Amino acid sequence: MERPRHQGMAKNTCMRWRLPLVCLLWEVAMIVLFGVFVRFGAEADAHWEEEKREMNLTSDIENDFYFRYPSFQDVHVMIFVGFGFLMTFLKRYGFGAVGFNFLLAAFGIQWALLMQGWFHSFKNGKILIGVENLINADFCVGSVCIAFGAILGKTSPIQLLVMTLFQVTLFSVNEYILLNLLHVKDAGGSMTIHTFGAYFGLTVTRILYRPNLEQSKDKQGSMYHSDLFAMIGTLYLWMYWPSFNSAISDHGDAQHRSAINTYCSLAACVLTTMAFSSMLQKKGKLDMVHIQNATLAGGVAVGTSAEMMLTPYGSLIVGSISGIVSTVGYVYFTPFLESRLHIQDTCGIHNLHAMPGLIGGIVGAITAAAATEDVYGKEGFIKAFDFTGVYQTRTPSIQGGFQAAGIVVSLLMAFAGGAIVGGILKLPIWGDAAAENCFEDDVYWEVPEDEESDSYHMHNPDKPASP
Amino acid sequence: MERPRHQGMAKNTCMRWRLPLVCLLWEVAMIVLFGVFVRFGAEADAHWEEEKREMNLTSDIENDFYFRYPSFQDVHVMIFVGFGFLMTFLKRYGFGAVGFNFLLAAFGIQWALLMQGWFHSFKNGKILIGVENLINADFCVGSVCIAFGAILGKTSPIQLLVMTLFQVTLFSVNEYILLNLLHVKDAGGSMTIHTFGAYFGLTVTRILYRPNLEQSKDKQGSMYHSDLFAMIGTLYLWMYWPSFNSAISDHGDAQHRSAINTYCSLAACVLTTMAFSSMLQKKGKLDMVHIQNATLAGGVAVGTSAEMMLTPYGSLIVGSISGIVSTVGYVYFTPFLESRLHIQDTCGIHNLHAMPGLIGGIVGAITAAAATEDVYGKEGFIKAFDFTGVYQTRTPSIQGGFQAAGIVVSLLMAFAGGAIVGGILKLPIWGDAAAENCFEDDVYWEVPEDEESDSYHMHNPDKPASP
Amino acid sequence: MERPRHQGMAKNTCMRWRLPLVCLLWEVAMIVLFGVFVRFGAEADAHWEEEKREMNLTSDIENDFYFRYPSFQDVHVMIFVGFGFLMTFLKRYGFGAVGFNFLLAAFGIQWALLMQGWFHSFKNGKILIGVENLINADFCVGSVCIAFGAILGKTSPIQLLVMTLFQVTLFSVNEYILLNLLHVKDAGGSMTIHTFGAYFGLTVTRILYRPNLEQSKDKQGSMYHSDLFAMIGTLYLWMYWPSFNSAISDHGDAQHRSAINTYCSLAACVLTTMAFSSMLQKKGKLDMVHIQNATLAGGVAVGTSAEMMLTPYGSLIVGSISGIVSTVGYVYFTPFLESRLHIQDTCGIHNLHAMPGLIGGIVGAITAAAATEDVYGKEGFIKAFDFTGVYQTRTPSIQGGFQAAGIVVSLLMAFAGGAIVGGILKLPIWGDAAAENCFEDDVYWEVPEDEESDSYHMHNPDKPASP
Repeated sequence: MERPRHQGMAKNTCMRWRLPLVCLLWEVAMIVLFGVFVRFGAEADAHWEEEKREMNLTSDIENDFYFRYPSFQDVHVMIFVGFGFLMTFLKRYGFGAVGFNFLLAAFGIQWALLMQGWFHSFKNGKILIGVENLINADFCVGSVCIAFGAILGKTSPIQLLVMTLFQVTLFSVNEYILLNLLHVKDAGGSMTIHTFGAYFGLTVTRILYRPNLEQSKDKQGSMYHSDLFAMIGTLYLWMYWPSFNSAISDHGDAQHRSAINTYCSLAACVLTTMAFSSMLQKKGKLDMVHIQNATLAGGVAVGTSAEMMLTPYGSLIVGSISGIVSTVGYVYFTPFLESRLHIQDTCGIHNLHAMPGLIGGIVGAITAAAATEDVYGKEGFIKAFDFTGVYQTRTPSIQGGFQAAGIVVSLLMAFAGGAIVGGILKLPIWGDAAAENCFEDDVYWEVPEDEESDSYHMHNPDKPASP
Repeated sequence: MERPRHQGMAKNTCMRWRLPLVCLLWEVAMIVLFGVFVRFGAEADAHWEEEKREMNLTSDIENDFYFRYPSFQDVHVMIFVGFGFLMTFLKRYGFGAVGFNFLLAAFGIQWALLMQGWFHSFKNGKILIGVENLINADFCVGSVCIAFGAILGKTSPIQLLVMTLFQVTLFSVNEYILLNLLHVKDAGGSMTIHTFGAYFGLTVTRILYRPNLEQSKDKQGSMYHSDLFAMIGTLYLWMYWPSFNSAISDHGDAQHRSAINTYCSLAACVLTTMAFSSMLQKKGKLDMVHIQNATLAGGVAVGTSAEMMLTPYGSLIVGSISGIVSTVGYVYFTPFLESRLHIQDTCGIHNLHAMPGLIGGIVGAITAAAATEDVYGKEGFIKAFDFTGVYQTRTPSIQGGFQAAGIVVSLLMAFAGGAIVGGILKLPIWGDAAAENCFEDDVYWEVPEDEESDSYHMHNPDKPASP
Repeated sequence: MERPRHQGMAKNTCMRWRLPLVCLLWEVAMIVLFGVFVRFGAEADAHWEEEKREMNLTSDIENDFYFRYPSFQDVHVMIFVGFGFLMTFLKRYGFGAVGFNFLLAAFGIQWALLMQGWFHSFKNGKILIGVENLINADFCVGSVCIAFGAILGKTSPIQLLVMTLFQVTLFSVNEYILLNLLHVKDAGGSMTIHTFGAYFGLTVTRILYRPNLEQSKDKQGSMYHSDLFAMIGTLYLWMYWPSFNSAISDHGDAQHRSAINTYCSLAACVLTTMAFSSMLQKKGKLDMVHIQNATLAGGVAVGTSAEMMLTPYGSLIVGSISGIVSTVGYVYFTPFLESRLHIQDTCGIHNLHAMPGLIGGIVGAITAAAATEDVYGKEGFIKAFDFTGVYQTRTPSIQGGFQAAGIVVSLLMAFAGGAIVGGILKLPIWGDAAAENCFEDDVYWEVPEDEESDSYHMHNPDKPASP
């Protein structure tokens, strides 16, 4: 199979020194910063025995670990297997999908622990971490995985690391503005994770627009088994989404409620996705692209409101609508975005994360604005929206307004941040591939030359049938 | 690859209007019914703060969420990834296996929440749901996934939805009879889920008998990678079965015991399956069909008794036997059922669910009948069998009798229900494919035309070698 | 495809009577031994109600089940899906990888429950088991899965069962020496699981050295989709490793801390692995072998110290170093071991388990020796190292010395045990395949003759193109 490839001629995609340099420098920086700043929180520190006595806790089971660790592991699976395998649908980009997702997420969680730590867990000059920080770091990286979906197959690993660095930073700032300054509720991250992550990624891919991408059009499709690999990602995202939306909710009823709302929303979403997938195809056949993606929109769309008293039927309504919007998006919006707006969105994150994220933010604002003491109970009302201290006087309708403001801020941060980061990624030093080599693992990976690869070339009309 | 296919001539399999209509009407009905009936249970409601005080609970960790949520997620994975991928073993039906399983399960859990809710969680005109309801809904749908295994590759998605609608209904009635009227114990569902689901499915497939199915015989086998995909399903079912059998057991020792018994039974089952798989083949080679399926029989066969004092060695015995019965079933019974009784059982659910389910029911009856206060302790005895209120005077041997009656009721419900539903599914309006198009994703799915597909046709003797 | 194969001529690999005999005899022995010895521990026994009252426990949530079951399930997934799929990277040995791993692990956990039970849970003539025993049995079998990695593709299933029998026995003895006699801490098993398991396996593969193995060199590589299957294994090991290292730590802060340290170590490890994988290839392309394996070294290397006050930055350092060592090992050591020392290490366990295991043991010794009451708190210090009873007077530096002794003992047990077991496995009665049939599922499995297989042969230059 010694067949000349032209990638080297057009662009220098060799990572040999650039990638190691970035990774190693970065890891050294992490070690130094962790050394200076990061310590165990009280519940993970060996002094916990004393802490327990001071707090009058009678049992180790009161450690936050037991409230959140199972949810953390589910979220962890969503980030690494869920997002990683969801993107393996491309016929020759499976290594890049799983491998680069692995790289950027492992890179990002370290930086997220620091960034989020400085904003939220900083005490006496130290960042004190526990299981909730791990979940939040995974969440933050989730928004990068979403953005990765838009540029999948078109960027070098270094570009992904640079984007991760900036996006995690901006995510943390945006999150701080929403949660701390605007006092917005967003446990499942419809705004902070999905809306921000998706519009950030869409802006980046717009800036990186490749006019000649049709040169690799034949590789932008899936093959039979790559679609099955992608379904592994889909199902793990779908199944564990109740854990995602409930992972950092308040202990007790809030976690419980978030899981139920998300479960209901996702179930409804599958039905409307299947319905519209069939309806919008000439022959009525189902399209795996929709099943792999739009079925998840229900999880995104209750991200903000799942911990509120959305109620099961409210969740069904939100899930149903988001499945329809997402599927319609794949059929009509994605081609439009590409041809008219020059937004090349490989995975269709506009349909899975951007629009459902907006829906989620809006539903959250409405649900908050409609909250009453009658529905929540007096104590439950205060606890659910954290109307204590300076927020004691906030009313539901004001809260709804702030929730809506949170959407706007997230959008502005995403557009501005995406534009800047897109500009940085356009510099010709990052080693991205030429248009004809996009969506091809061969550029950055040692790829085994197997039978499938043989037969691939064999049936490729414009290449000779055999060596 | 524009090659004429004949499916359209024989039967109209186009789903374009039928499937969307069914899905959307159904989802609207669900929204209305949930709106009228379904509310959060006390532990998921924002009033939980007050509830906690009334019940003198000092910690949020007492919320049922923390007792059951990890098990719920394991069960959830079993239903969607476990059953879904287990059925991907067919070489060209992976989309249908995973995708239709996804569709029917998402459809079924909503209806199950209502049906089971009316029977078990109905208070003051409302169904109050919590994490246990989610588990039970997944369980109920599990019985549909089992039945799906018998008709895999031979039915349209609409037929599956119709079957789901009726089977969930009948399941809930049968479950109510067993658990409430007969006061039978069946935490892991040997009777309610496996025996009922399997004989229901076998009856349906008998009614839907296709005399010309050998026309698609070449597609009924597996291929190398489809067998590996199926092993993902197998292993997740196998690993999480201890969670399945313990998910709705009483808090404390009962959950703990169920998990241990199931773990032991499954371990033994693997060994006897491997032994008989090798022994029953002329050349002594292992057969993936057995490894994928019969290794799971041990989980089915302790479904009723796992929460009882079956003991670890009792579990090993039950697991060993069920592995043998199941493997022998695949080698001898399945061909017999097909040729003599005209029962075409695609996945061999008779061997994996029906026979082990019966074993499970019987073992449960014996274990219950053999219970003594000595073994359980005075309090443990009452708690384990819930011998309180009107059941205060029930003795172990009477309980054993009722357990046995539960098997019979489940069988009768399965046969009667399966016959009726099979009859309904025989109507010529549901869009099922002709015999020569069974086990082929192409009928209902947009299938990428990839290399494998090419080479598939290339080596297909009765088709031209290249376009 | 009736093509003569020569395996039968060289060696008798037929398992028809040998494998069933071993499996069935063994299972009968297990049933008898479990019948005599194994009973439910107090927390899984129906007498738990009385136990609870005696121990003044007010809630069922205090049952160890709720502290450890989620971690147990994660470990369970690591053993069966993690190790099983990690080894599917070979192009034609996926059935053997997943299937034999399944067989030996199911076989081993039963024997481990007994062996470890006699050493650690033996009371009044009975072994009393609970969820912690299940975790420990899985751990023990983990060391066999590691050793399996060295001999993957070169042994018969019977050899694997014989090895499992002996290795579990020796593991339990070694573990007893370390934990009970030396009073060493090793919650994540850097020494007991990884160092022991890996050097045991390497010794066995050295004894079983096959001089003509290059005859099956073409099957020792991966193919595109087998590499993706392997990534499923990799990611589940990587994601759940925090559960592995924390599963049997003390309740409360120790479990919490172990998870955080492991999370940090693994994140760092991914970055240095990617860096060196790219750096050490001529063209700077990433190698899936490294990504699949070396990224996990960080979990191994904090196995001993994760529950100690290693601190997050300490974890980053350990993870970074182990990723480098492991990747360098794959590039330079593995070829050296094979050509010079005749150690044929199929999966490179020397790089993933042996060296990182040693690092883990050493880091554990240093961390223990450096412990102070200031860092741990007075009570925390005693609790962390269990300095009670006869160990009341042990100082950190003495503990460090014992930890180091634990490494040496594990190594000696591994070399001696591996040599003996390797000798036993060399007997010509176990049905292993000839060198030219290694790494080939066809020998022990019914393999579907699918398209890929066809095209495989088609492109195989020394075979005719079509039947």
